Amino acid sequence: MFALHPRLDGDTAFISDWPLCRVLLMNDCAYPWLILVPRRADTVEITDLAPADQAILIAEVARASTALRAQLQPRRINVAALGNMVPQLHVHVIARFESDPAWPRPVWGMAPPRPYPPEELERRLAELRGALA
Amino acid sequence: MFALHPRLDGDTAFISDWPLCRVLLMNDCAYPWLILVPRRADTVEITDLAPADQAILIAEVARASTALRAQLQPRRINVAALGNMVPQLHVHVIARFESDPAWPRPVWGMAPPRPYPPEELERRLAELRGALA
Repeated sequence: MFALHPRLDGDTAFISDWPLCRVLLMNDCAYPWLILVPRRADTVEITDLAPADQAILIAEVARASTALRAQLQPRRINVAALGNMVPQLHVHVIARFESDPAWPRPVWGMAPPRPYPPEELERRLAELRGALA
Repeated sequence: MFALHPRLDGDTAFISDWPLCRVLLMNDCAYPWLILVPRRADTVEITDLAPADQAILIAEVARASTALRAQLQPRRINVAALGNMVPQLHVHVIARFESDPAWPRPVWGMAPPRPYPPEELERRLAELRGALA
Protein backbone atom coordinates (compact mmCIF):
# COMPACT_ATOMS: atom_id res chain seq x y z
CA MET A 1 0.00 0.00 0.00
CA PHE A 2 1.31 3.44 -0.96
CA ALA A 3 1.40 5.98 1.86
CA LEU A 4 2.97 9.42 1.69
CA HIS A 5 5.84 9.95 4.14
CA PRO A 6 4.65 12.26 6.97
CA ARG A 7 7.47 14.73 6.31
CA LEU A 8 6.46 15.07 2.65
CA ASP A 9 2.82 15.32 3.68
CA GLY A 10 3.60 18.10 6.14
CA ASP A 11 5.78 20.15 3.76
CA THR A 12 3.47 20.10 0.73
CA ALA A 13 -0.02 20.60 -0.67
CA PHE A 14 -1.77 18.12 -2.96
CA ILE A 15 -2.10 18.99 -6.64
CA SER A 16 -3.01 15.82 -8.54
CA ASP A 17 -2.57 12.06 -8.83
CA TRP A 18 -1.02 11.10 -12.16
CA PRO A 19 -0.77 7.51 -13.46
CA LEU A 20 2.41 6.89 -11.46
CA CYS A 21 3.08 9.87 -9.23
CA ARG A 22 1.35 11.98 -6.66
CA VAL A 23 2.07 15.59 -7.64
CA LEU A 24 2.63 17.96 -4.73
CA LEU A 25 3.46 21.63 -4.29
CA MET A 26 6.28 22.34 -1.84
CA ASN A 27 5.01 24.95 0.58
CA ASP A 28 7.87 27.38 -0.02
CA CYS A 29 6.89 30.59 -1.77
CA ALA A 30 10.51 31.31 -2.73
CA TYR A 31 10.34 28.85 -5.66
CA PRO A 32 7.68 27.22 -7.86
CA TRP A 33 8.59 23.74 -6.61
CA LEU A 34 6.81 20.49 -7.39
CA ILE A 35 7.51 17.13 -5.80
CA LEU A 36 6.56 13.93 -7.63
CA VAL A 37 6.16 10.82 -5.48
CA PRO A 38 5.71 7.46 -7.24
CA ARG A 39 2.63 5.81 -5.75
CA ARG A 40 4.35 2.51 -5.11
CA ALA A 41 4.97 1.03 -1.67
CA ASP A 42 8.51 0.57 -0.33
CA THR A 43 10.25 2.67 -2.95
CA VAL A 44 13.48 4.32 -1.89
CA GLU A 45 15.72 4.52 -4.97
CA ILE A 46 14.82 4.89 -8.65
CA THR A 47 16.15 1.36 -9.06
CA ASP A 48 13.38 0.10 -6.75
CA LEU A 49 10.91 0.91 -9.53
CA ALA A 50 10.27 -1.61 -12.29
CA PRO A 51 11.80 -0.46 -15.61
CA ALA A 52 8.35 0.35 -17.01
CA ASP A 53 7.65 2.57 -14.00
CA GLN A 54 11.04 4.25 -14.41
CA ALA A 55 10.01 5.23 -17.94
CA ILE A 56 6.69 6.60 -16.67
CA LEU A 57 8.54 8.52 -13.97
CA ILE A 58 10.73 10.41 -16.44
CA ALA A 59 7.73 11.04 -18.70
CA GLU A 60 5.88 12.55 -15.74
CA VAL A 61 8.94 14.63 -14.80
CA ALA A 62 8.96 15.90 -18.40
CA ARG A 63 5.22 16.62 -18.22
CA ALA A 64 5.69 18.63 -15.02
CA SER A 65 8.68 20.48 -16.51
CA THR A 66 6.76 21.36 -19.66
CA ALA A 67 3.84 22.72 -17.63
CA LEU A 68 6.11 24.86 -15.44
CA ARG A 69 7.96 26.18 -18.48
CA ALA A 70 4.74 27.06 -20.28
CA GLN A 71 3.26 28.78 -17.27
CA LEU A 72 6.29 30.55 -15.81
CA GLN A 73 9.08 30.77 -18.43
CA PRO A 74 11.83 29.95 -15.91
CA ARG A 75 15.53 30.13 -16.72
CA ARG A 76 16.00 26.42 -15.88
CA ILE A 77 14.18 23.45 -14.46
CA ASN A 78 16.08 21.66 -11.68
CA VAL A 79 15.24 17.96 -11.31
CA ALA A 80 16.53 15.87 -8.42
CA ALA A 81 15.96 12.70 -6.42
CA LEU A 82 18.06 13.09 -3.26
CA GLY A 83 16.37 11.48 -0.27
CA ASN A 84 19.11 11.96 2.28
CA MET A 85 16.52 13.29 4.75
CA VAL A 86 13.30 11.52 3.66
CA PRO A 87 13.77 7.92 2.52
CA GLN A 88 10.65 7.63 0.33
CA LEU A 89 11.56 8.19 -3.32
CA HIS A 90 10.49 11.67 -4.41
CA VAL A 91 11.59 13.84 -7.30
CA HIS A 92 11.95 17.59 -7.04
CA VAL A 93 10.98 19.59 -10.15
CA ILE A 94 11.76 23.23 -9.50
CA ALA A 95 11.39 26.28 -11.74
CA ARG A 96 14.50 28.40 -11.30
CA PHE A 97 14.96 32.09 -12.08
CA GLU A 98 18.05 34.27 -12.05
CA SER A 99 16.09 36.45 -9.61
CA ASP A 100 15.38 33.69 -7.08
CA PRO A 101 17.10 33.71 -3.67
CA ALA A 102 19.44 30.77 -4.31
CA TRP A 103 20.40 31.29 -7.97
CA PRO A 104 22.67 29.83 -9.32
CA ARG A 105 23.08 27.47 -6.39
CA PRO A 106 20.69 24.56 -5.71
CA VAL A 107 17.74 25.43 -3.47
CA TRP A 108 18.23 22.83 -0.75
CA GLY A 109 19.57 23.98 2.59
CA MET A 110 19.79 27.65 1.57
CA ALA A 111 17.13 28.92 3.97
CA PRO A 112 14.15 27.45 5.83
CA PRO A 113 11.05 27.18 3.62
CA ARG A 114 8.87 30.30 3.60
CA PRO A 115 5.28 29.02 3.65
CA TYR A 116 2.89 30.73 1.24
CA PRO A 117 0.41 33.14 2.80
CA PRO A 118 -2.92 31.20 2.76
CA GLU A 119 -4.54 33.17 -0.09
CA GLU A 120 -1.40 32.99 -2.21
CA LEU A 121 -1.20 29.23 -1.62
CA GLU A 122 -4.78 28.81 -2.82
CA ARG A 123 -4.13 30.93 -5.89
CA ARG A 124 -0.92 29.09 -6.77
CA LEU A 125 -2.61 25.71 -6.28
CA ALA A 126 -5.52 26.72 -8.50
CA GLU A 127 -3.11 27.83 -11.26
CA LEU A 128 -1.06 24.65 -11.00
CA ARG A 129 -4.08 22.35 -10.84
CA GLY A 130 -5.20 23.99 -14.08
CA ALA A 131 -1.79 23.48 -15.69
CA LEU A 132 -1.13 19.99 -14.31
CA ALA A 133 -4.51 18.25 -14.18
CA MET B 1 27.02 17.10 -33.59
CA PHE B 2 27.48 16.25 -29.91
CA ALA B 3 30.29 18.05 -28.15
CA LEU B 4 31.01 17.98 -24.44
CA HIS B 5 30.80 21.39 -22.76
CA PRO B 6 34.34 22.59 -21.89
CA ARG B 7 33.47 22.98 -18.20
CA LEU B 8 32.27 19.36 -17.99
CA ASP B 9 35.30 18.24 -19.94
CA GLY B 10 37.64 20.07 -17.57
CA ASP B 11 35.99 18.80 -14.38
CA THR B 12 35.77 15.11 -15.27
CA ALA B 13 37.51 12.02 -16.61
CA PHE B 14 36.06 9.75 -19.30
CA ILE B 15 34.70 6.35 -18.27
CA SER B 16 32.56 5.02 -21.12
CA ASP B 17 30.13 5.84 -23.92
CA TRP B 18 26.78 4.14 -23.39
CA PRO B 19 24.01 3.99 -26.03
CA LEU B 20 22.74 7.44 -25.05
CA CYS B 21 25.11 8.97 -22.52
CA ARG B 22 28.78 9.71 -22.10
CA VAL B 23 29.66 8.49 -18.61
CA LEU B 24 32.16 10.65 -16.75
CA LEU B 25 33.81 10.65 -13.33
CA MET B 26 33.71 13.98 -11.53
CA ASN B 27 37.26 14.73 -10.42
CA ASP B 28 36.36 15.21 -6.75
CA CYS B 29 37.72 12.56 -4.43
CA ALA B 30 35.22 13.52 -1.70
CA TYR B 31 32.42 11.55 -3.41
CA PRO B 32 32.04 8.71 -5.93
CA TRP B 33 30.34 10.99 -8.43
CA LEU B 34 29.32 10.11 -11.98
CA ILE B 35 28.00 12.53 -14.59
CA LEU B 36 25.91 11.22 -17.48
CA VAL B 37 25.72 13.46 -20.55
CA PRO B 38 23.26 12.54 -23.32
CA ARG B 39 25.22 12.47 -26.58
CA ARG B 40 22.72 14.64 -28.43
CA ALA B 41 23.43 18.13 -29.76
CA ASP B 42 21.65 21.20 -28.35
CA THR B 43 20.19 19.48 -25.30
CA VAL B 44 19.57 21.68 -22.30
CA GLU B 45 16.52 20.30 -20.49
CA ILE B 46 15.26 16.73 -20.18
CA THR B 47 12.32 17.87 -22.30
CA ASP B 48 14.72 18.58 -25.18
CA LEU B 49 15.20 14.82 -25.50
CA ALA B 50 12.74 12.77 -27.54
CA PRO B 51 10.52 10.61 -25.31
CA ALA B 52 12.38 7.45 -26.37
CA ASP B 53 15.69 9.07 -25.35
CA GLN B 54 14.16 10.15 -22.02
CA ALA B 55 13.37 6.49 -21.30
CA ILE B 56 16.94 5.49 -22.20
CA LEU B 57 18.27 8.26 -19.97
CA ILE B 58 16.49 6.97 -16.87
CA ALA B 59 17.48 3.39 -17.70
CA GLU B 60 21.12 4.52 -17.90
CA VAL B 61 20.77 6.44 -14.61
CA ALA B 62 19.42 3.22 -13.07
CA ARG B 63 22.31 1.24 -14.57
CA ALA B 64 24.85 3.67 -13.10
CA SER B 65 23.07 3.60 -9.73
CA THR B 66 23.02 -0.18 -9.64
CA ALA B 67 26.74 -0.35 -10.42
CA LEU B 68 27.63 2.18 -7.71
CA ARG B 69 25.45 0.36 -5.18
CA ALA B 70 26.97 -3.01 -6.00
CA GLN B 71 30.50 -1.69 -5.82
CA LEU B 72 30.29 0.70 -2.88
CA GLN B 73 27.15 -0.01 -0.79
CA PRO B 74 26.35 3.68 -0.29
CA ARG B 75 23.61 4.93 2.02
CA ARG B 76 21.83 6.68 -0.87
CA ILE B 77 22.22 7.55 -4.51
CA ASN B 78 21.60 11.22 -5.31
CA VAL B 79 20.40 11.90 -8.86
CA ALA B 80 20.06 15.41 -10.24
CA ALA B 81 19.87 17.45 -13.43
CA LEU B 82 20.49 21.05 -12.40
CA GLY B 83 22.37 22.98 -15.06
CA ASN B 84 22.29 26.42 -13.48
CA MET B 85 26.02 26.80 -14.17
CA VAL B 86 26.55 24.58 -17.25
CA PRO B 87 23.73 24.68 -19.79
CA GLN B 88 24.37 21.30 -21.47
CA LEU B 89 22.05 18.66 -20.01
CA HIS B 90 23.97 16.44 -17.60
CA VAL B 91 22.79 14.17 -14.82
CA HIS B 92 24.69 13.74 -11.57
CA VAL B 93 24.64 10.24 -10.05
CA ILE B 94 26.41 10.39 -6.70
CA ALA B 95 27.02 7.69 -4.11
CA ARG B 96 26.37 9.21 -0.70
CA PHE B 97 27.60 8.01 2.68
CA GLU B 98 26.78 9.18 6.18
CA SER B 99 30.53 9.67 6.56
CA ASP B 100 30.93 11.98 3.55
CA PRO B 101 31.74 15.67 4.06
CA ALA B 102 28.33 17.04 3.02
CA TRP B 103 25.96 14.41 4.47
CA PRO B 104 22.96 14.82 4.74
CA ARG B 105 23.08 17.97 2.61
CA PRO B 106 23.47 17.92 -1.17
CA VAL B 107 27.05 18.01 -2.41
CA TRP B 108 26.89 21.07 -4.66
CA GLY B 109 28.48 24.26 -3.42
CA MET B 110 29.72 22.75 -0.16
CA ALA B 111 33.41 23.03 -0.92
CA PRO B 112 35.59 23.32 -4.02
CA PRO B 113 36.23 19.92 -5.65
CA ARG B 114 39.26 18.08 -4.31
CA PRO B 115 40.93 16.51 -7.35
CA TYR B 116 42.03 12.89 -6.95
CA PRO B 117 45.76 12.35 -6.57
CA PRO B 118 46.84 10.98 -9.98
CA GLU B 119 47.36 7.36 -8.88
CA GLU B 120 44.08 7.30 -7.00
CA LEU B 121 42.29 8.72 -10.05
CA GLU B 122 43.69 5.95 -12.22
CA ARG B 123 42.71 3.29 -9.69
CA ARG B 124 39.18 4.67 -9.30
CA LEU B 125 38.76 4.92 -13.09
CA ALA B 126 39.93 1.34 -13.56
CA GLU B 127 37.43 0.11 -10.96
CA LEU B 128 34.59 2.09 -12.46
CA ARG B 129 35.41 1.14 -16.04
CA GLY B 130 35.19 -2.47 -14.88
CA ALA B 131 31.84 -1.89 -13.19
CA LEU B 132 30.34 0.35 -15.86
CA ALA B 133 31.68 -0.93 -19.16
